[in-house]
Amino acid sequence: MSDLLWPGDHRAGDLFTDASVVAAMIRVEQAWLDALIERGLAEPSVATALDGLAGPDDLPSLAVGAESGGNPLIPLLKLMRARLRGRNTAAVGWLHKGLTSQDVVDTALVLCLRDAAARIRVQLSAQISALTRLAGEHRETRMAGRTLTQHAIPITFGLKAAGWLTGVLDARDTLAEAARLPIQVGGAAGSLAAPVALAGDPVTARELVETAARNLDLPPREPWHTSRAPLTRIGDAFTTCTDAWGRIANDVLIGSRPEVRELIEGAAEGKGGSSAMPNKQNPVHAVLIKRAAIAGPPLAATLHAASAAAVDERPDGSWHVEWATLRALSRRTLTAASQTAELLSGLVVESGRMLATLHGARPGIDAEQLSITPGVTPDHHPYLGATDEIIDAVLARAERR
Amino acid sequence: MSDLLWPGDHRAGDLFTDASVVAAMIRVEQAWLDALIERGLAEPSVATALDGLAGPDDLPSLAVGAESGGNPLIPLLKLMRARLRGRNTAAVGWLHKGLTSQDVVDTALVLCLRDAAARIRVQLSAQISALTRLAGEHRETRMAGRTLTQHAIPITFGLKAAGWLTGVLDARDTLAEAARLPIQVGGAAGSLAAPVALAGDPVTARELVETAARNLDLPPREPWHTSRAPLTRIGDAFTTCTDAWGRIANDVLIGSRPEVRELIEGAAEGKGGSSAMPNKQNPVHAVLIKRAAIAGPPLAATLHAASAAAVDERPDGSWHVEWATLRALSRRTLTAASQTAELLSGLVVESGRMLATLHGARPGIDAEQLSITPGVTPDHHPYLGATDEIIDAVLARAERR
Amino acid sequence: MSDLLWPGDHRAGDLFTDASVVAAMIRVEQAWLDALIERGLAEPSVATALDGLAGPDDLPSLAVGAESGGNPLIPLLKLMRARLRGRNTAAVGWLHKGLTSQDVVDTALVLCLRDAAARIRVQLSAQISALTRLAGEHRETRMAGRTLTQHAIPITFGLKAAGWLTGVLDARDTLAEAARLPIQVGGAAGSLAAPVALAGDPVTARELVETAARNLDLPPREPWHTSRAPLTRIGDAFTTCTDAWGRIANDVLIGSRPEVRELIEGAAEGKGGSSAMPNKQNPVHAVLIKRAAIAGPPLAATLHAASAAAVDERPDGSWHVEWATLRALSRRTLTAASQTAELLSGLVVESGRMLATLHGARPGIDAEQLSITPGVTPDHHPYLGATDEIIDAVLARAERR
Amino acid sequence: MSDLLWPGDHRAGDLFTDASVVAAMIRVEQAWLDALIERGLAEPSVATALDGLAGPDDLPSLAVGAESGGNPLIPLLKLMRARLRGRNTAAVGWLHKGLTSQDVVDTALVLCLRDAAARIRVQLSAQISALTRLAGEHRETRMAGRTLTQHAIPITFGLKAAGWLTGVLDARDTLAEAARLPIQVGGAAGSLAAPVALAGDPVTARELVETAARNLDLPPREPWHTSRAPLTRIGDAFTTCTDAWGRIANDVLIGSRPEVRELIEGAAEGKGGSSAMPNKQNPVHAVLIKRAAIAGPPLAATLHAASAAAVDERPDGSWHVEWATLRALSRRTLTAASQTAELLSGLVVESGRMLATLHGARPGIDAEQLSITPGVTPDHHPYLGATDEIIDAVLARAERR
Repeated sequence: MSDLLWPGDHRAGDLFTDASVVAAMIRVEQAWLDALIERGLAEPSVATALDGLAGPDDLPSLAVGAESGGNPLIPLLKLMRARLRGRNTAAVGWLHKGLTSQDVVDTALVLCLRDAAARIRVQLSAQISALTRLAGEHRETRMAGRTLTQHAIPITFGLKAAGWLTGVLDARDTLAEAARLPIQVGGAAGSLAAPVALAGDPVTARELVETAARNLDLPPREPWHTSRAPLTRIGDAFTTCTDAWGRIANDVLIGSRPEVRELIEGAAEGKGGSSAMPNKQNPVHAVLIKRAAIAGPPLAATLHAASAAAVDERPDGSWHVEWATLRALSRRTLTAASQTAELLSGLVVESGRMLATLHGARPGIDAEQLSITPGVTPDHHPYLGATDEIIDAVLARAERR
Repeated sequence: MSDLLWPGDHRAGDLFTDASVVAAMIRVEQAWLDALIERGLAEPSVATALDGLAGPDDLPSLAVGAESGGNPLIPLLKLMRARLRGRNTAAVGWLHKGLTSQDVVDTALVLCLRDAAARIRVQLSAQISALTRLAGEHRETRMAGRTLTQHAIPITFGLKAAGWLTGVLDARDTLAEAARLPIQVGGAAGSLAAPVALAGDPVTARELVETAARNLDLPPREPWHTSRAPLTRIGDAFTTCTDAWGRIANDVLIGSRPEVRELIEGAAEGKGGSSAMPNKQNPVHAVLIKRAAIAGPPLAATLHAASAAAVDERPDGSWHVEWATLRALSRRTLTAASQTAELLSGLVVESGRMLATLHGARPGIDAEQLSITPGVTPDHHPYLGATDEIIDAVLARAERR
Repeated sequence: MSDLLWPGDHRAGDLFTDASVVAAMIRVEQAWLDALIERGLAEPSVATALDGLAGPDDLPSLAVGAESGGNPLIPLLKLMRARLRGRNTAAVGWLHKGLTSQDVVDTALVLCLRDAAARIRVQLSAQISALTRLAGEHRETRMAGRTLTQHAIPITFGLKAAGWLTGVLDARDTLAEAARLPIQVGGAAGSLAAPVALAGDPVTARELVETAARNLDLPPREPWHTSRAPLTRIGDAFTTCTDAWGRIANDVLIGSRPEVRELIEGAAEGKGGSSAMPNKQNPVHAVLIKRAAIAGPPLAATLHAASAAAVDERPDGSWHVEWATLRALSRRTLTAASQTAELLSGLVVESGRMLATLHGARPGIDAEQLSITPGVTPDHHPYLGATDEIIDAVLARAERR
Repeated sequence: MSDLLWPGDHRAGDLFTDASVVAAMIRVEQAWLDALIERGLAEPSVATALDGLAGPDDLPSLAVGAESGGNPLIPLLKLMRARLRGRNTAAVGWLHKGLTSQDVVDTALVLCLRDAAARIRVQLSAQISALTRLAGEHRETRMAGRTLTQHAIPITFGLKAAGWLTGVLDARDTLAEAARLPIQVGGAAGSLAAPVALAGDPVTARELVETAARNLDLPPREPWHTSRAPLTRIGDAFTTCTDAWGRIANDVLIGSRPEVRELIEGAAEGKGGSSAMPNKQNPVHAVLIKRAAIAGPPLAATLHAASAAAVDERPDGSWHVEWATLRALSRRTLTAASQTAELLSGLVVESGRMLATLHGARPGIDAEQLSITPGVTPDHHPYLGATDEIIDAVLARAERR
């Protein structure tokens, strides 16, 4: 999968593609079928590997077929049953037994989201490494601090990198909390009625759910068909990520303006070129990261709007809007994660230019210092405050997980 | 193209697919090349058909290649030039001459959006026909009017259908105003510098733009690289459409609840079924339309956020976020347009049930009437106000365009 | 009214304050009462001036009282009736006769929105004047054009100002289309049932509505209780305004960075100061305008979400969310309108610095020109394309309304 | 403070009013001044109570004065200094010493948000009590489960209440994590430069910050002027609350429709009345809660958009948009919290009607049961699955904090 209109989308690989979603739904059905057998409800003979029952060639017809029932599980199940019929006819009747569509779709979304979170965390680690290095190496790289676009007081680039790192660590921690998404099994109306009917009693039914959860390595949870906070949380966490990267990209975009020229995106063959202007070297990654940061909040808001519109025991439209929203948000966040990691690891810091600008900003930029300690010579007393201690504290936080 | 996670997406067909976007970009380059020849700037010998220069097999590599320059035109141009080299080497140098990437990408988006608007208008016409019929047929189909969920006073279903039609006509008119999107040609920084250098003088350069615009049947306009109102307008218009359909879907969803049972979605083989409950007949189209109505506003807001973040002579990220946003909004609006047309044309109106509910709502529902005209017998004096005149006025408006 | 947390809010004056909304609701009741008398339905003796029936001191209790019925008209009406009782007892029974709460609240919102649009248009005119001047005066003020943050090709500041003006003209035209908001009179369920009962027949009832509309100088329209496009249109138009101003503010914020220093916000006593740094001169208006441009799109999206959630003959929550949203959007748009007008009229253009930056950007910034016309001397052939013609075209458009 | 256009707003009392914000800013200055004295940096003689230095009468001029510097602290400080001059002239020079505007404004916002969170938690507790009671009392109150608007399988109202409770508990837990907001002290550019200059060394400066934090009972944190996750988290948490309540309101709105009549909002004198229809009893609280649930997500998205637009050491507009957004979100969330608590405590559950509807839904609603256990008599085998165990698990979770 790739998307011509979201350059860089290939970085998300097979995450949340139609094929991945189908595979995830099959995996959920497999975990349930296996659990039925493990708990002794279904005969061992119905054991069968489901993963070959649908493939890439089926995707177009599954997509079309998803409309009449309103979700993609219904045509998939029909297809799986038809193909299973020849191979293990006894299994046909046990497939999906006790589940409802939403159980399978929601849990498949959860598997895709867990995958997304794991891949994003790899990129967050790379970002944290790069930022740790930048903060450390540039502890003493002096530059002009800027507020409301104007020169304020001197800082160091290490402090700025530590500030970027704070945002990334906030994103990391928010994502860690949100990423432990639970299984969804509730049956038709969230009461586990069919599983209990199959299992004979509630205790066994709940053990059945726990077994399926274990098969998928997911935590169990009471049914949440219409309590969608698990999904809004992960959406908020993804957006907290793109917020942090957007803020970095903004600084890089300002820093790479020719008039500032303090930060330069790492070059690569063909990167940043123009279709008409041979002179251009555009900060393409920063541009594309900023794009993702603009797109994120409205998508996360869509998940909240959906959650707030839930009704009955399964919502009439607000459930359905979550799926593609989660996919777009996941792929774009992963793409931006990867671009940010690359941006940070290749970032060129023009410390000479930073210092020159700082000197050029005098005496204005020293005004606060001189008002507090009149008579001091700023060049000899750098007025860097607790820069080192702040950097150390942020680096220590980075170490903690 | 189809989307497993947006059931019904196949209704949008090839609209705004990667292949369609590539074809649109090629069409823009063609129109420009032809204009260069027509205005006598390029030799007739460079005339060449560009449309075979890229095909479906190229899409994956074009998508990947779009990242390094930050937009999809750059790799496409490279590919076209390479392939043109053997066929019409003289044309290679004239291809894209005087244009900038944004000229081609923006105009290609405009072509896709014009296509979207045209297809949506076909569905709007079908909806208007269906609603005209419903409003006419059910002028005297009495039912309970409801406000804040409670029975208010009697109305007719014809009046309700006329109210739905008002929303659809508002959407039609808003879309008509927004859909006349202009060509984008400004060159590198919106000054037409390169076209003037090629043409020799500004007047000829502007004629060149007009010729290209005529070749694409688009209105000319001063460059709008960073004045994005044409795009926010069409986004707002699409959302005005989904608003109108969402409001209809909401009424159908309430009306098709078993306790109300006044409106029933037309049945079709396999439609509305459940994976576990054979009894279910779900109002699937209404559900999926409501979904689109939830998703629309945040996407239109993304276009405004992008427009408001524009800077310089080409924006650093806010331009890039528009592309996929416009695609999602266009395809989803067209899908919902088609579903709404189908919903309306097949809608079953249970007039008997409506009347029974109205009678059951008495005497409360007659309270206002009795307070204004004490002693009247509501059953003989239907209290329908200007229902007929309002319906007539709305139907007359429907005729006007 | 003023808002400590939205600096500049006082520029919106009494627009849409609680007092203004109460006055507008009273004005609607007055227009209706007068219409009842004018059409001969009520006796001339019930004529009475309503505008003294509620005042500033009543606002707190009206606000509290609005909750139990869910809208502010109910407690206002109760208060008006009580106070009218002593003064013109015959009028008490005719007050509000035939109307529903939503008729009065919606029409009062329309009156406030019309006021907002009118005040904003005054500011738009001032902006257009200032931009016309800037575009004219700086036709030949050469500067570096920038795309994706990097130097692209030379332009003039006049061209940039014409680009800003294009956005402002788009906003003006969008607002002009949206601002002709209609009266809302439909009675309890949009059928004009009560007005017809009062008037005796539909034709007279509709004349009654037209009379009331004329009294308020509003166009009549079929009832639109659940077809909310008139409100989403004005919300979209306001946001189109803040988009245009945000884009100007972004350029000013970049231009006023010390490293760029091409554009400087006009100074005023105490403006742009800092609480700690005596050296600072912050571009405060640009900052506050950018703020409004960030806040606008989500508010306009809220109106669309509300419109899409409409149901029945009066919605169950989506109507209620519109009121405060429209107020915030109106006041903030007017505040930003005024700040933008002031920003533009006082903007200092550092043409010397622009030229110096342009020279410093060579030879890179001349690369496109040299690739098209090799051997030319850029300093003698400015490569400004059709700058003059584009400026003329935009200025001509500014004149057209 | 009260808001005519947001009925119920008075429930938020003085939360986040202009007066409360001023008081909070003064409290921050007080905590800092006291810390300067406690750490021995300022003489004990400068100790002075600041809280009388500005009062309600100053609010209008402070609001107007906030524009020229772009934030409300600057005029407040000027006023405080002028009034302090006569009382404790030595203190004038120490007031605000070492701080920057953003330190004070951000920490004041934090104090207001902490207050909001505390008040909302009181309401959440009341909701949890009411839901615990409803879930317990109605364990066996059988009703029709509904999915996609249609009857699915039988459930109990206790299970539904437990589902509502799950959403409320998710909100409670999300809010608890987000509510521990930190102090903001970083000085002009986040380096603690001025505090270190005052204190003589970084260690003492950081102790100074910790002392101020302790004075305000806030956790310390490295400066977060441009890392805004603390604010987006609380915004997301507030929205998670309104999501949960919106979902409850939706069920109540459906349940209180005359055709369903399973749930009735508690009555109160004058509540739910209409301006024209004496028969109406509207579910006003549910309507107003749903309103808040529509408004919340775009406001939380505004905070994310602002966070993502941060740049430099203090942002140029995105900081400023947070203030009024946080106020609106806080007051509306608290208002909805209180309305939801009241709605739940007074909710009338029509168990007879629920049972009648369930019986009327047969045999369709029993179809799944009969397909799993053919031949069973549904009336004797209620098919309630693990309803009891699920309720118990949710109630146990409610107890855990």
